[in-house]
Amino acid sequence: VVETTGEYSAYRERLYEHRRAGDAEALPVDPAELERAAAAVLSDVASAHVFGGAGGGETIRANREAFQRVRLVPRFLRDVSAIRLGRRVLGDELPAPLLLAPIGGQALVHADGERASARAAAALGIPVIASTRSSATPEQIAEAAGAGPRWFQLYWPADDGILASFVGRVERAGYSAIVLTVDCFTQGWRPLEIDLAGPLEVQGVGSEIFLSDPAFRSMLARPPEEDREAAGQLYRRARSHPALSWDDLGRLRELSSLPLVVKGILHPDDAREAVARGAAAVVCSNHGGRQVDGAIASLEALPAIVDAVGGSVPVLLDGGVRSGSDVVKALALGAAAVLLGRPFLYGLALAGEEGVDHVLRCLLGDLELTLALCGIASVAELDGRILSP
Amino acid sequence: VVETTGEYSAYRERLYEHRRAGDAEALPVDPAELERAAAAVLSDVASAHVFGGAGGGETIRANREAFQRVRLVPRFLRDVSAIRLGRRVLGDELPAPLLLAPIGGQALVHADGERASARAAAALGIPVIASTRSSATPEQIAEAAGAGPRWFQLYWPADDGILASFVGRVERAGYSAIVLTVDCFTQGWRPLEIDLAGPLEVQGVGSEIFLSDPAFRSMLARPPEEDREAAGQLYRRARSHPALSWDDLGRLRELSSLPLVVKGILHPDDAREAVARGAAAVVCSNHGGRQVDGAIASLEALPAIVDAVGGSVPVLLDGGVRSGSDVVKALALGAAAVLLGRPFLYGLALAGEEGVDHVLRCLLGDLELTLALCGIASVAELDGRILSP
Amino acid sequence: VVETTGEYSAYRERLYEHRRAGDAEALPVDPAELERAAAAVLSDVASAHVFGGAGGGETIRANREAFQRVRLVPRFLRDVSAIRLGRRVLGDELPAPLLLAPIGGQALVHADGERASARAAAALGIPVIASTRSSATPEQIAEAAGAGPRWFQLYWPADDGILASFVGRVERAGYSAIVLTVDCFTQGWRPLEIDLAGPLEVQGVGSEIFLSDPAFRSMLARPPEEDREAAGQLYRRARSHPALSWDDLGRLRELSSLPLVVKGILHPDDAREAVARGAAAVVCSNHGGRQVDGAIASLEALPAIVDAVGGSVPVLLDGGVRSGSDVVKALALGAAAVLLGRPFLYGLALAGEEGVDHVLRCLLGDLELTLALCGIASVAELDGRILSP
Amino acid sequence: VVETTGEYSAYRERLYEHRRAGDAEALPVDPAELERAAAAVLSDVASAHVFGGAGGGETIRANREAFQRVRLVPRFLRDVSAIRLGRRVLGDELPAPLLLAPIGGQALVHADGERASARAAAALGIPVIASTRSSATPEQIAEAAGAGPRWFQLYWPADDGILASFVGRVERAGYSAIVLTVDCFTQGWRPLEIDLAGPLEVQGVGSEIFLSDPAFRSMLARPPEEDREAAGQLYRRARSHPALSWDDLGRLRELSSLPLVVKGILHPDDAREAVARGAAAVVCSNHGGRQVDGAIASLEALPAIVDAVGGSVPVLLDGGVRSGSDVVKALALGAAAVLLGRPFLYGLALAGEEGVDHVLRCLLGDLELTLALCGIASVAELDGRILSP
Repeated sequence: VVETTGEYSAYRERLYEHRRAGDAEALPVDPAELERAAAAVLSDVASAHVFGGAGGGETIRANREAFQRVRLVPRFLRDVSAIRLGRRVLGDELPAPLLLAPIGGQALVHADGERASARAAAALGIPVIASTRSSATPEQIAEAAGAGPRWFQLYWPADDGILASFVGRVERAGYSAIVLTVDCFTQGWRPLEIDLAGPLEVQGVGSEIFLSDPAFRSMLARPPEEDREAAGQLYRRARSHPALSWDDLGRLRELSSLPLVVKGILHPDDAREAVARGAAAVVCSNHGGRQVDGAIASLEALPAIVDAVGGSVPVLLDGGVRSGSDVVKALALGAAAVLLGRPFLYGLALAGEEGVDHVLRCLLGDLELTLALCGIASVAELDGRILSP
Repeated sequence: VVETTGEYSAYRERLYEHRRAGDAEALPVDPAELERAAAAVLSDVASAHVFGGAGGGETIRANREAFQRVRLVPRFLRDVSAIRLGRRVLGDELPAPLLLAPIGGQALVHADGERASARAAAALGIPVIASTRSSATPEQIAEAAGAGPRWFQLYWPADDGILASFVGRVERAGYSAIVLTVDCFTQGWRPLEIDLAGPLEVQGVGSEIFLSDPAFRSMLARPPEEDREAAGQLYRRARSHPALSWDDLGRLRELSSLPLVVKGILHPDDAREAVARGAAAVVCSNHGGRQVDGAIASLEALPAIVDAVGGSVPVLLDGGVRSGSDVVKALALGAAAVLLGRPFLYGLALAGEEGVDHVLRCLLGDLELTLALCGIASVAELDGRILSP
Repeated sequence: VVETTGEYSAYRERLYEHRRAGDAEALPVDPAELERAAAAVLSDVASAHVFGGAGGGETIRANREAFQRVRLVPRFLRDVSAIRLGRRVLGDELPAPLLLAPIGGQALVHADGERASARAAAALGIPVIASTRSSATPEQIAEAAGAGPRWFQLYWPADDGILASFVGRVERAGYSAIVLTVDCFTQGWRPLEIDLAGPLEVQGVGSEIFLSDPAFRSMLARPPEEDREAAGQLYRRARSHPALSWDDLGRLRELSSLPLVVKGILHPDDAREAVARGAAAVVCSNHGGRQVDGAIASLEALPAIVDAVGGSVPVLLDGGVRSGSDVVKALALGAAAVLLGRPFLYGLALAGEEGVDHVLRCLLGDLELTLALCGIASVAELDGRILSP
Repeated sequence: VVETTGEYSAYRERLYEHRRAGDAEALPVDPAELERAAAAVLSDVASAHVFGGAGGGETIRANREAFQRVRLVPRFLRDVSAIRLGRRVLGDELPAPLLLAPIGGQALVHADGERASARAAAALGIPVIASTRSSATPEQIAEAAGAGPRWFQLYWPADDGILASFVGRVERAGYSAIVLTVDCFTQGWRPLEIDLAGPLEVQGVGSEIFLSDPAFRSMLARPPEEDREAAGQLYRRARSHPALSWDDLGRLRELSSLPLVVKGILHPDDAREAVARGAAAVVCSNHGGRQVDGAIASLEALPAIVDAVGGSVPVLLDGGVRSGSDVVKALALGAAAVLLGRPFLYGLALAGEEGVDHVLRCLLGDLELTLALCGIASVAELDGRILSP
């Protein structure tokens, strides 16, 4: 019975109890309130990192407006006493069509950083996608995730030795997919970030995977701990590869048998190309509006991409997801699953692992109830028929 | 002559007199002002109950925006010296195409709760739709309504004995229709409600019909007054039935010869199904935006539903009605009548029965004048020709 | 040369001089600033009268938004050294395609009321349309207008003797057209007006034409000055005629040979009917959004009406005009001239006759410059080619 | 490598360093913040000059909204390690598709006025378009620009002798094109400017080219320094020519062999006419929304103009450009280059030459990064395929 015993919506009962008990410390459920609360505790530097977008923020707004334009037409008097959110993606049985988006530098947001979010996700069986720019090494994140599913997000380094080393490390650390981000070989023009902060490396976070890497260290005359200047210079040269092209993908596939996910796809031709080059999945994403101001909303780009790959590989959607309805809409438009970005940082900012847990449970509870109230008993049933024409 | 002697617009003359007399206590006429005034007197718990919507409130806004997009094209120099608002719905001769929407827990809003709103509606001959989650029993509401028309809104309980008992009670109490709500077998995800309050049962209201029910009480070892814990547990098990399906409707029709209205319809296929299953009317509604955030606006869903039932049964419209123009628009789009929801709660909050009376008289006066000023002498003449193409 | 010697844009030079001279009392040119300044000096009662609209104000907003949606495509390198704004309407040679809209009760806005606005309009040769509900008699307004053109706006009284008397009076007072308003036989539902004020008669203004009328006075046992109660009752019975229909128009045409203008037309069929009944012109108007909330914007209704009358009579546009561009847009969509409403009240509120003069000169200067900058040397050249498709 | 060594995006590295160094005086990068900061330091007179628009500012808003409606669809995994922004326009090799728009009276904004902006532009090789209404003579601006490219914007004076003198002077001062502005032979109706300031000549700036001109001076009995009144009168007569028509263009072409650019084109027929009359380029512009309120957005007018000239001459776009994305959008819609207007004034207001340099470098850095992140290695590759359909 959904009413009180749904796996995820049961969390609401716990929240009711907290309110009854007068718990003044309770984290907000309202997403806008959660965002405001997080903004109030973040430093300027962390604010720029979390909220910063490209240019005037048009694409950040576009991501949300695209969701708001889509309307659901719920159906009723169907048996929804048991809701199935589970979805198989790239061989992983996910408890819900949801992953944690890769976000670097989480130490700016909370002292426990990526480890806290990885623990929270793992406890729910939600895959964490560890960023190359994490403020922890992939091994540390893997240890935090324990038995939980984990994917690794790759910024392709300029040096092949380092690339090979990274790939080997994430394989050994139990990551089950490599998510190659193609839309951020350089930061977009982010006025807020420049005005308030400077990017991650200015803050001294986000290079942990390099500093801990044997191949990287072998390229230095002295260990980074002893010569930070030289390490920083090498890091800035090595961290990205703007000349990367489709032809390079073959090399990565030779380095690893892990499924390759290409993240940052907005054009159907790029989706087709990714599939032709062996991608096991693509992520339709505009990097949360952080790269090209004025870029198409990811939800708006989704249908043509789904159409282009024609079911050959799953398409994931990233950007603007805030609620259960948003997940339903993305799936109805053809996404296999969605990535949750900024909201989990709000939880992290406010209460570390517990905050991320809260945000995830709220989203899952919302999703479970919204599906039930749409007359959909399983995410497998979701398609365009639930949308207003 | 409409000018001063119209049945309902005459109320405006009384309001003028109040102003002339300098009555500082006068209730606002302006709907936005009325809402603000009500918000100012409601407790947090009542605010969450009255204003709370699903998720980010997109569907609450969509309900209003759908009305705002529709434009009327008034006609003139027609004889509108006598305006007829009356409409026959399910055998009841209504003085206007208007009913009070079923809303539970009105004791949170005003001490007199449902009895006050029932008395106000009855005085005008407007049907009240008593909610299963009322903070009064159906018998108490019937007594308050006196000779006034009344319908009963049913949340189908999980136990058939309780269902049969409910149906018998409302028949004996003089209700003339059963409105089965299909879109709220569980609460939607309502952040404001969770953050501020918790649902009705957390507040200890809304279960009066259960606690007073012989079938319910017979299932308890001890009377609820003596063992609140056990009663609460049984209530939470019994109050809803998420596995309910279209096939179950036959049982309800066997239990009662009262006309069955299905409320919560948004898809034309569900409307057709309801008619095929013997519904005497359907209510196009998204539960005031409280259940699925992102659900289609009810006014937007209306035309396809009207088209689907093809005149076989009346279609009622619920959600977003605030003014006489809104009623005209809904009827022009094919609704037989509309349900008024939140606005009457604002009146109730401010002044109990008198406040509901004020809100109803304002709406009826506005409707009467708007019809006259559209060149329409009777609601029976309203159709799509009054709308801008 | 438009630059400095255009007939109307020369006013700008005077304004520059005022600013140079540091005149702190200068009236604002910016329309929004003018509105704010006026709002600050108006009493509550006058505010309700000036700003009040039907319901939630949707049609007031719609009137403005309709103008904002239309875009002009200026042309250049045409000889616009002499701009001709003049237009012949109903036999009057107007200096510009502009008339003062009929607005009653101007004594609430400024002590000099209608006489001030009539004097300001007359000085520029702009026709004033005196309202039946004026706070001055038609004779007083005519005297103020002197040699200036004047039309009379008629609310058709319920008594034929009074009607005949009114018509005779305005003929004798030199009015050259009768503008029959068909959309306000009763006030619309205006929350702000009810909440703050009550209508004109509650304020004791607007019945001057009745109280001074021989036919009206002859129906009273004692003069109104001695028995205000009886006069008030008769006034409320006599002032309007909600049963009026198209068939009645013949009687008015028999009473007077003055051209008959029908004001309040929104539907093309009503425009056709008016022409068939002998109207010499129609005014496309929704009464400034004061009557039916949700009514179509008058500018939006205009093209179909222009199309319906097919050039047989001029179509005037009323509602939402604020700037020279607005006049250009209305004329490009087929209006012969426009009526200016609320803005002249702002000038009246701030500085009486001088304020109305300021508002009119600003609008004419703006219009003259805008036409020149669109490459249009004469209003006669304006048509749809200036509009963005 | 774009990451750190792109010609223009390298400026971001310098900004990071400033932030790291805690430079509290740093100019904002965020365009909205920059605008606010400039507004805070400008006098009322300068504010009216910089921010003033025609009427209610609808076209100022329309210019921005037109950019916001266009969406980019970035492509990835293309080699963008070297970005080429250079473009050849009218024989000049521009380092980027960007020119400084002609804006007069810059002395109101900063004591160094046009000389500061000319120096900043010249340092980057960006052409400055010197306005006829500059608060410096063309010779002074040329001297400031040094070896930098410069075009001259012409308001055609009413006297042919002065015209010939102007043309000769700008040829001798090394200007390489004449930009004839056709949309401002008289100021538009600008409420803010009238209310706060009056136009340039009221401020005593903008007539420097006249006062320094031999032909102009020869028409005066006494030098302007000795008889300001007579000089002012002659200036007001001579400064513009509202009767100018297409036929006059031949005379200008006979006076000079410099390429003629026609600025202020919004209609495709005017674009065709300009080309037929020998224009070497046209500028699609609505004068930054300062002339006709309600005029079409320049970006919206662009495609039809590009289509009309069919590649025979370059089309430049002016109005609303604020970011790198805006430049990409304009070029994708067919513009050969864009003019940057108000933003450089913000920089000028805040820090003179250094401020203009900052604004230009930010825009170029943003453009370089945005192109790279769109997968476009050269502006020559930009076309409609980058736009969302």
